[in-house]
Amino acid sequence: MSLLIPKSPSGPTLEALNEVEQNQLEKPHGESLNDFTSKSSYTNKSTKASVDCRRNTASLKGCHFCSARMRYTSSGIGSSEEDDSESSTEVGDPNHVSDTQGNCNVSSDKDEKIGVGSKFCNACDYWNPVDEENVNIRQLTRYSNGTIKLRNPHINFMDQDILYHLALGSESHDLIEMFHDVKFVCIGGTPKRMEEFAYYIMKEIDYKIPAGTQLLDISQYSYRYSMYKTGPVLSISHGMGIPSVSILLHEVIKLMYHAKVCDPIFFRIGTCGGIGIDGGTVIITEEALNSDLKSYQELTVLGKKVRRPGKLDKRLCDELLGISRETQEPYDTVSGKTMCTDDFYEGQGRLDGAFCDYSEKEKMSYISHLQRSGVTNIEMESLAFAALTHHAGIRAAVVCVSLLDRIRGDQVLAPKEVLNEWQRRPQKLVARYIKKQLGLVPHRRSPTIPELSSPCQCPHTTVMPVKSPRRITMVQQESQSYD
Amino acid sequence: MSLLIPKSPSGPTLEALNEVEQNQLEKPHGESLNDFTSKSSYTNKSTKASVDCRRNTASLKGCHFCSARMRYTSSGIGSSEEDDSESSTEVGDPNHVSDTQGNCNVSSDKDEKIGVGSKFCNACDYWNPVDEENVNIRQLTRYSNGTIKLRNPHINFMDQDILYHLALGSESHDLIEMFHDVKFVCIGGTPKRMEEFAYYIMKEIDYKIPAGTQLLDISQYSYRYSMYKTGPVLSISHGMGIPSVSILLHEVIKLMYHAKVCDPIFFRIGTCGGIGIDGGTVIITEEALNSDLKSYQELTVLGKKVRRPGKLDKRLCDELLGISRETQEPYDTVSGKTMCTDDFYEGQGRLDGAFCDYSEKEKMSYISHLQRSGVTNIEMESLAFAALTHHAGIRAAVVCVSLLDRIRGDQVLAPKEVLNEWQRRPQKLVARYIKKQLGLVPHRRSPTIPELSSPCQCPHTTVMPVKSPRRITMVQQESQSYD
Repeated sequence: MSLLIPKSPSGPTLEALNEVEQNQLEKPHGESLNDFTSKSSYTNKSTKASVDCRRNTASLKGCHFCSARMRYTSSGIGSSEEDDSESSTEVGDPNHVSDTQGNCNVSSDKDEKIGVGSKFCNACDYWNPVDEENVNIRQLTRYSNGTIKLRNPHINFMDQDILYHLALGSESHDLIEMFHDVKFVCIGGTPKRMEEFAYYIMKEIDYKIPAGTQLLDISQYSYRYSMYKTGPVLSISHGMGIPSVSILLHEVIKLMYHAKVCDPIFFRIGTCGGIGIDGGTVIITEEALNSDLKSYQELTVLGKKVRRPGKLDKRLCDELLGISRETQEPYDTVSGKTMCTDDFYEGQGRLDGAFCDYSEKEKMSYISHLQRSGVTNIEMESLAFAALTHHAGIRAAVVCVSLLDRIRGDQVLAPKEVLNEWQRRPQKLVARYIKKQLGLVPHRRSPTIPELSSPCQCPHTTVMPVKSPRRITMVQQESQSYD
Repeated sequence: MSLLIPKSPSGPTLEALNEVEQNQLEKPHGESLNDFTSKSSYTNKSTKASVDCRRNTASLKGCHFCSARMRYTSSGIGSSEEDDSESSTEVGDPNHVSDTQGNCNVSSDKDEKIGVGSKFCNACDYWNPVDEENVNIRQLTRYSNGTIKLRNPHINFMDQDILYHLALGSESHDLIEMFHDVKFVCIGGTPKRMEEFAYYIMKEIDYKIPAGTQLLDISQYSYRYSMYKTGPVLSISHGMGIPSVSILLHEVIKLMYHAKVCDPIFFRIGTCGGIGIDGGTVIITEEALNSDLKSYQELTVLGKKVRRPGKLDKRLCDELLGISRETQEPYDTVSGKTMCTDDFYEGQGRLDGAFCDYSEKEKMSYISHLQRSGVTNIEMESLAFAALTHHAGIRAAVVCVSLLDRIRGDQVLAPKEVLNEWQRRPQKLVARYIKKQLGLVPHRRSPTIPELSSPCQCPHTTVMPVKSPRRITMVQQESQSYD
C-alpha cells in the first residue's frame, strides 16, 4: 500500500512553538494581536512578582474572569527570560492597582505559567487562557498545509505515543495509512449507535468495501470506545459525561496529528432533554454552558484552575441549519444554548434519582429559570466537546435530538419506533452535510438506516495496516490496563 | 419461584421522611444531635429572611464552608411551618453577625432548601449538607429490617421507576426475585474486566449455575453498563469518570431499594497511578479528594452548589488491610488518600495529552506536591463513589492496583502478563473479604482467574424473571434512548 504522504519525522517541537510565538511577535495579525504579544514589564524574580503597572494600553488586558487589569505575554514553555527582565519605562496606568493596593497582581513566576500566552491573575486566582479573540488560533493548531499541529511540544520527544483508550500507537500502527483520508469525525454515546451510524453513512456516501468484508471496531481491544471508519468518516462512541469524552478527544486529536489529517470537522450526534422544545426536535448547539450557565469549561491543571471557552463553530452551525431548511423535514431543527451537566439526576433537576431533596415545584421553577436564560436543551458532553475542539482549532458542531420536553415531565413516553426514528434525525442532518461537502447529491431523501449486521469476528491484526506486530501487541495490552 | 419477601407497596413517602425528622426531634441520639435538631428561630417569610441571631448555642452551627455561624433545622421537603414560625427569645449571639453587618445570612426560604436538615448560607453561597457527624445517617437510609431506604420521597409516587442505564424497571422486572439476595456490589471500569471478575468470584465462592447455562449481561440492552450476578455478588462496569459512575450508582442504589436488599457492601475495584508507590501495589482508599485536594464532591443541584464528603468506611478499609496482612502476598497493600480527577491527561499532570502547556519540571513539582500532601494514588471515579455511597449510608471501599509510580514516569512499562496479574490483585483481596463474610474458607490461595468464555447468546427474556413482557420491551427501548 502506498503512502500519500511520506512518513518522516515531523511535528511541533519546543523550538517550533517558540517560533510560533516569535512569529506572533514579529508579524502581528491585526491591532489587538499587538496588545497580546507586547512584551511585559515584569520584574525578574524567581517567585511571584507584582506587576510594575505602567501606562501601556497596548500591552494591558482585563483579566478574563475578574475586573482586574493584567498584562499578557507570549511566554510559556521555552519562553525566554527577556519577558521577565525587560522593565517598562512608561508611566503608571491609573486603572491598574498594584499589589499593595490589593487589586491585581499578575504572577510572572515561570513555575506558574500555564499555556502559551496565558497568565495567572492573583486577584481572582485564575489562569487566563490565550486571548482567543485576538490570537490567530490557526497559527497554533495548523501547519501551513492544513494538517493538525498539537499544542503539546512533548509528544515529538516520545519514543511512541500510545493512544491507550483507542488501542492504537504512533509507532505500532501505520496511522497515516489508516487515517490520513479522514475528513469528518462523528462521535456519540454508545457503541451500538455509532456502529449503526457507520453503516448508515457508508450507504449514504456510497462507500464500498470489498465483498466478504465488514466494518471492524478498530478500538475493540481498548474495551472502552468503539471506532469505525468508512472512508473519510470516523464514527466513535464516547461513553457518558465530560471525563469520558475528554479522554476520547485528547486521543482523537492526537490521532489526527499523527495521521496528518487536514482540517477535520468534528460532530457530536446524540440525544438530550429539551427545555420548551418538543420531543423529536433537532437542536444544534450555539454554545455550551456549564451548570452555572457560564460558557466555559473549568479544569484543574497542576493545581491551578484553567477555563476554556465552550465555543462551537458558528458557520458550521449556520450551514447545518441551512441544510435543514432546504430538506423540509416534518420536524423542527433549531439552534440554541446547551447546558452540560456532570450528573443525570440531581444535576438535571430530575425527581427520580436515588437522592432528591427538592419538590416538583422547585424543580419546575429551576427548569423555567433555564428556559428564561435561553437554554434549549441539557446533556452531558457538549461543554468538553466544545472546549477541546475549540482549543485545538477544530471546526465542530453538536447536533442532538430532544427525547422529551422537560417542561412537561421527566419520563420519555414516546414508543420505540418513534424514538428510533428520532435518534436518526441528527445522523441524517450530519450525513447530508457530509455528502454536500464531498460533492455528492446533497438533498436526496435519506433511506432508512439499515439494520446492524452481526459484530465482526475477524482477527484484529488481519485487517489493519501494521508497522510492528510486536508493538501492536504491546499497545493492546497497555490499552487494556487503563480505566 | 417463591418470593422471600412479599411484594407489597412500601418505601419512603413524604410522611415517612417527616416521621424520620420527627423522630430526630423527639429522640435525639447524643448530645450533638440535639444541636442539629433544635428548632430554629427563623422568621416566617416566603422570601429569603435574615436570621434573627440570638444566643442559642444548642441550635447554632458553624457553616461547613465558611467561618460564618448559622442555624440548622430539620426542615426539608414536607417540613412543617413550625420551624419557621417559632422565634427565639434568647439574647443575641456575639459571634453571629447579622445581615446588615454582612457576615452571615441564612436563608429560610423553602424554595431554597436542599436536603433534610440542610441549610443555605448566604455568607459563602453554599448549601450546608446534613450534619453528617451528628445525624444518624442510618435512620435516613435504612428501614428497621436493614433494607435500603431512599433519600427520595418521589420514587414511591411513580407508576414505574425505570433504571434507564441498567435496562431494568421496578414494574417490568421482578427485582426482588432477581436481586434480593445481593450482599456485595463490585464495580469496575470495563465490561470485560467485570465479566472476568464475575467468573472469578463464581469460582471463588463456589457458586453453581445449572449445566448448560452461562452468566448473562443483565444490562446488555442498555448498551452502556454490563452487569453480572453470581449469587450474592453483583459485578458491574461503570465506564470512565465521575458522571458515568454517578449515573450507575444512582440506579444501583435504587435497585437495592426496589429489591429490598439488606445492608449491601459496595466495592470499586480498578487501576490507578501511584504517587511514590511501586507498580503492582494494592491501594485501599482512606478518603477521596477532588483536584483541589479537598475531601468533598461538589455538584450543582437546581443551580445551587452542594458538597458531599468523600468518605469511605474506615472499618471496611481496616478489615481489608487486615486480610491482606494475613495472606502474606508478595506485594504491598497500603491505604492512603486518593485524588480523583475529571481528566486523564492535563488533569493528572501528564505530558502526553493533545494539549500540554507545562514542562516536565513543573509536572514533577506538582506530583511531588501531591506526595507531600499525602496523596498515594490518582484515578477518576473514587470521589463520586465515596460521596454517593456515604450519602446513601452504604459501607464502601475503593481498592485499586497501581500500574506505575508517577514519580518515575507516565508510561506503563510492565509487560502484558505482569499487568494482567496486577489487575487481579484488587479482585483477589475483595474476593477474600467476600468469602470471609460468607463464612467460606477465607485464606485459601486464590486460583488463577479463569479465561472468559464467549459472550452469552441467549435471548434476554428467557433467563430473567418477568413480571410484564410488554413493560420489559418498553424498558429496553427507553433505556436504549439515553446517552
